[in-house]
Amino acid sequence: MPYLCSKVIFNLLNNKRMKQLAILCCLIVGQSYAQHVQSSPDGNMKVSFGLNQSGKPFYKVSYKNQEVIKESFMGLELKNTIDLIADFEVVKENKSSFDETWKPVWGEESEIRNHYNELLVSLRQKTSDRLMNIRFRVYNDGVGFRYEFPQQKHLTYFTVVEEWTEFAMTGDHTAWWIVGDYDTQEYDYTESRLSEIRLLNQGAINDNASQTPFSRTGVQTSLMMKTDSGLYINLHEAALKDYSCMHLNLNDSNFVFQSHLTPDATGDKAHLQAPCHTPWRTIMVSDDARNILASRLILNLNDPCAYEDTSWIKPVKYIGVWWEMISGKSSWAYTDELPSIQLDKVDYSKLKTNGRHAANNENVRKYIDFAAKHGFDQVLVEGWNVGWEDWFGHSKDYVFDFVTPYPDFDIKALNEYAHSKGVKLMMHHETSSSVRNYERHMEKAYQLMNDYGYNAVKSGYVGNIVPRGEHHYGQWLVNHYLYAVTEAAKHKIMVNAHEAVRPTGLCRTYPNLIGNESARGTEFESFGGNKPFHTTVLPFTRLQGGPMDYTPGIFETQVWNVNPDNRSYARSTLAKQLGLYLTMYSPLQMAADLPENYNKYLDAFQFIKDVPVDWQKSIYLEAEPGRYITVARKDKHSNDWYIGCTANENGHTSHLKLNFLDKNKKYEATIYADAKNAHYKNNPKAYTITKKKVDANTSLTIVAKEGGGYAVSIKEVK
Amino acid sequence: MPYLCSKVIFNLLNNKRMKQLAILCCLIVGQSYAQHVQSSPDGNMKVSFGLNQSGKPFYKVSYKNQEVIKESFMGLELKNTIDLIADFEVVKENKSSFDETWKPVWGEESEIRNHYNELLVSLRQKTSDRLMNIRFRVYNDGVGFRYEFPQQKHLTYFTVVEEWTEFAMTGDHTAWWIVGDYDTQEYDYTESRLSEIRLLNQGAINDNASQTPFSRTGVQTSLMMKTDSGLYINLHEAALKDYSCMHLNLNDSNFVFQSHLTPDATGDKAHLQAPCHTPWRTIMVSDDARNILASRLILNLNDPCAYEDTSWIKPVKYIGVWWEMISGKSSWAYTDELPSIQLDKVDYSKLKTNGRHAANNENVRKYIDFAAKHGFDQVLVEGWNVGWEDWFGHSKDYVFDFVTPYPDFDIKALNEYAHSKGVKLMMHHETSSSVRNYERHMEKAYQLMNDYGYNAVKSGYVGNIVPRGEHHYGQWLVNHYLYAVTEAAKHKIMVNAHEAVRPTGLCRTYPNLIGNESARGTEFESFGGNKPFHTTVLPFTRLQGGPMDYTPGIFETQVWNVNPDNRSYARSTLAKQLGLYLTMYSPLQMAADLPENYNKYLDAFQFIKDVPVDWQKSIYLEAEPGRYITVARKDKHSNDWYIGCTANENGHTSHLKLNFLDKNKKYEATIYADAKNAHYKNNPKAYTITKKKVDANTSLTIVAKEGGGYAVSIKEVK
Repeated sequence: MPYLCSKVIFNLLNNKRMKQLAILCCLIVGQSYAQHVQSSPDGNMKVSFGLNQSGKPFYKVSYKNQEVIKESFMGLELKNTIDLIADFEVVKENKSSFDETWKPVWGEESEIRNHYNELLVSLRQKTSDRLMNIRFRVYNDGVGFRYEFPQQKHLTYFTVVEEWTEFAMTGDHTAWWIVGDYDTQEYDYTESRLSEIRLLNQGAINDNASQTPFSRTGVQTSLMMKTDSGLYINLHEAALKDYSCMHLNLNDSNFVFQSHLTPDATGDKAHLQAPCHTPWRTIMVSDDARNILASRLILNLNDPCAYEDTSWIKPVKYIGVWWEMISGKSSWAYTDELPSIQLDKVDYSKLKTNGRHAANNENVRKYIDFAAKHGFDQVLVEGWNVGWEDWFGHSKDYVFDFVTPYPDFDIKALNEYAHSKGVKLMMHHETSSSVRNYERHMEKAYQLMNDYGYNAVKSGYVGNIVPRGEHHYGQWLVNHYLYAVTEAAKHKIMVNAHEAVRPTGLCRTYPNLIGNESARGTEFESFGGNKPFHTTVLPFTRLQGGPMDYTPGIFETQVWNVNPDNRSYARSTLAKQLGLYLTMYSPLQMAADLPENYNKYLDAFQFIKDVPVDWQKSIYLEAEPGRYITVARKDKHSNDWYIGCTANENGHTSHLKLNFLDKNKKYEATIYADAKNAHYKNNPKAYTITKKKVDANTSLTIVAKEGGGYAVSIKEVK
Repeated sequence: MPYLCSKVIFNLLNNKRMKQLAILCCLIVGQSYAQHVQSSPDGNMKVSFGLNQSGKPFYKVSYKNQEVIKESFMGLELKNTIDLIADFEVVKENKSSFDETWKPVWGEESEIRNHYNELLVSLRQKTSDRLMNIRFRVYNDGVGFRYEFPQQKHLTYFTVVEEWTEFAMTGDHTAWWIVGDYDTQEYDYTESRLSEIRLLNQGAINDNASQTPFSRTGVQTSLMMKTDSGLYINLHEAALKDYSCMHLNLNDSNFVFQSHLTPDATGDKAHLQAPCHTPWRTIMVSDDARNILASRLILNLNDPCAYEDTSWIKPVKYIGVWWEMISGKSSWAYTDELPSIQLDKVDYSKLKTNGRHAANNENVRKYIDFAAKHGFDQVLVEGWNVGWEDWFGHSKDYVFDFVTPYPDFDIKALNEYAHSKGVKLMMHHETSSSVRNYERHMEKAYQLMNDYGYNAVKSGYVGNIVPRGEHHYGQWLVNHYLYAVTEAAKHKIMVNAHEAVRPTGLCRTYPNLIGNESARGTEFESFGGNKPFHTTVLPFTRLQGGPMDYTPGIFETQVWNVNPDNRSYARSTLAKQLGLYLTMYSPLQMAADLPENYNKYLDAFQFIKDVPVDWQKSIYLEAEPGRYITVARKDKHSNDWYIGCTANENGHTSHLKLNFLDKNKKYEATIYADAKNAHYKNNPKAYTITKKKVDANTSLTIVAKEGGGYAVSIKEVK
């Protein structure tokens, strides 16, 4: 192999003239076709790497001898210097194996196995004398690879104009995609052939407070696909740090996806300093869709936990002063008296409240009482702090100070009241995307949380980014989101960031990143609705990178019963809302509806009260993207199991074998299912609750109706 | 007058129909030529304001019945809405007078009179129903005006695409200008006719770490001009806050200057929220150049001091570990071992020092000893903190942490040593223009200063701004610079910011902004030299907005005597360097040369030791831009006077009458002058020191040789 040839000669020769000879030899031999291969531990997944005649790196992936990724080029275009795209030679190949089981602070399992074979190819760009390594990790369920730039003489600071990583598909697969956008992921998914993306692109765009679609064939990761031969393929990235978020741009004439990074305000894509590396580019593959959901590849490609003490990080079940604003019944703002607010000048004590301000002492106390009564950990209160009168859509710099409560929110008394009842308040930091302003106030804002006993914050990034020209998914913001998380950790604060960049498994390294939104959440059920199949797609896509604060639990799915002016409704039955506590895994789960709505359906509400938010084990029983997902999970702290199912507009009938239950144990199952006549449109709140003795030999048939789902609790009977 | 007509009718009528009639009447009458006039207290300065037939606002200025500013339009172009340029009517005119004497915390005088007549014109844009006021303040020595946007219904948040304020000159004046640039003012001045600016533009640009010239006829403010009839005109701005810095773009076919604001990363010029106003646009005029230097118009147009307690703000005379790096003799960096540094990974204790690192314990102690011996307040130490190995030119984000000293700088011991000798160390925060990084570390950096007893920081903004696309003089940075000052005030820290936006008198409001660079300083004498006339221009231009940390006092003007590899030399005699302590007013004055160079000329050095940095009174005795400046100042705390003179390459002979001295007092003058054969090029260090008894009747003739100057101390003999 050429790289060996050159290596041997280099090691043998010491004088300069002979080295020149060796380089010459290398240049000649380098014309030939290098091949480097690594397989997964089970041998099913195979990656091949090589250089073409021009020294352009490429890779291929196969699964069970089926081609998954065709020959795909790799490289980076740089600013004001030679691109890292061609003229490479292989200097060295390293192969190794790794097998380790680690314990996440929280998760779908209490133990995760990280088992892969690695191929590290060390490249040298000949003319420029620069080094670039490509590291592949090959798992049974997929492949990760990244570019690495060692410390070296001729490459230190460099700017990426574009990363040119290809993912060459083998055909016109079916995909579940949302529009590629630098600023939002809050789009409904479209299921289509790759060849149909261009046609359907415009129709797939709905309005958002900040949005920048970049191409007619641009889509976001994680992208879920299915081949006609029944392979499930997922493309995403892992460990996105100090780089910009990768989208995929499809060449729909040959079905090659091209990486497309989010630009900064000047159009550049990333600014790097060697030694450094890109995030991992991930390709999950299986012939069983359940394996895609069960894959821990993204987490495994992230670094181990960066914190020594994680005892302060705790899963959270919460309610919130929130849905009443989302539905339009109440307001975040305190007053309607001023057309705009200047925080350094306004005196709220002289202004009249609008009477619709939800975050007032009396109302918050009601929520605290409800949380205490039903065993919730926390109560989120949005709209507690000054500035909400004109926070939206103005790219306002000094929009919030994150520390000053409205006159009708007694922060001290309310926290004391909550604590006296064993409940915590959850902090809320809407930044309005004025990121400099947030960073300026962050330390004091976190300090205030420490002072009053908050340990979790929901943050938000609604609207266009300030500094202007930057995007939600660019390197500048990627850096900021993580800064907010690591600064929070210094205060033992957990972060649930909304509208931030989509997660890429960083919660392994920084487990106080306890949630993210970064997708179209339940709030859109009040803004026109999500497609009925939405939650059958999200676990295959958005959830690959980390938990989502999806805020399920809307019992009053017809929003006009909360706010008569709002004609929106959730594309879900009530029973499906329960199922989501299982299918939408998160260590942070909200019961999003109003207390009065739960009081109407306390029997069904019992499931939300029961369902844990941290797990020993998870088993995906059934899964087909866009159709249905059924998962069984075992409570981390008991022998109880829980099952949840979500189905699309056609419903789904499950035939479940409970053989995962402990053979020696007896259980009582409570089945929260759609009633026979349930339907997400016309009869969403028709549900049945059935109790049944079950054990490992039991089989259950449960029907999820149109846009429906179900939930089952299986409690050990001692 | 039409506005009176409309006002009367409005007051008389109450029903809607009649009001409509009145508006109609107004619209018709509004076609005529509105005129609103205000004069200065002495009647010499006159401003006229009017609307043309299209409702476009314009103004004119005359001085002693001579036209100074011809009819010049005013207005703002807005983004995505109707421009605030035409279709106005005058709603109201207010005239008032103001006369107040205030005491600056530090300054050229201990008392400043703020005496003006005001004209406030309230405008309404008819079709859009929006309000804009223009406020003029007319002083004996100039005019200030600004746009004001009251709180209103139809104008709240708006983005300025460009401010279109004209300054129509009456002819092809002589100007002392530097190239208009969004990022630097570190250019040499050019003296030329306005008509020659285009031709000379390219030759007037020298390289800078960050520079963005915007037009072939763009120049910076403050711009100094002289008409053929002998009028001196200065254009600048005052109180630049939360807006972008204004440049001037010349239409050289008609000599009309057009305001040109600094853009943000997306090209927009300013983002405003009503109620708000622009900075003041200032026009100083006199037939005596000395009045331009003596004018306090810029300070007067700024708000009074924002701090209750200012006792911690103290003028400073300092030396520094600085010129040895500027000259290339020593280095800021500790080591040469690594091609680049990552602060979170590097371990300096394992690296070898390069042996040229100036900020080491032994060397700093030498400076402290020297400062203590000669009565200096502070010792600046640059290069004390980790990160200098690759701080320059990489737009590096995490470039400094501002708190970690190099291994050879014992921050605790050195501060204790300094304090034991009655000296303070001066902090240094080079940001490398990585502004987010600075703000992230600012609080801890200031806290460190408090911990170790620093009370002043020199900050720097070398290189392109990060966030990328923003400019040094844009609104984003204007906001930042003031943030750094007000945050410093919370820690009782004084700020001397280099490469920041040019000052506009904000030091009145925030007197801990004790200095700025924002021009080509003495450092350039080591980088090829400043033009010999440089310091005869700066007081007319750069210094109008506030003091400059010019760092005079280079005795060894031939830099090769410090570093043999550096062939640069100061375009100045040694005597002129002394004169600069008077002509370049600053409450912060450095003696910039090396201790060993001062030790060679201790008799001349005596003047630097003697000269105060705070004054009771200042009298400009002689002044002609580009030629010479001679000023006499009275010490704030004694009856002693000091005189300084700077001259251009032709030298200057002063005939001074000391009639400003107290009639009843006797004085001894010490005259530090160029020797007869002195010359900035070939014989810069030839000086004479003469002592002489003087009183109010004395006349002195003193000669500044080519590129020379002189200094005189006049001490009371009791």
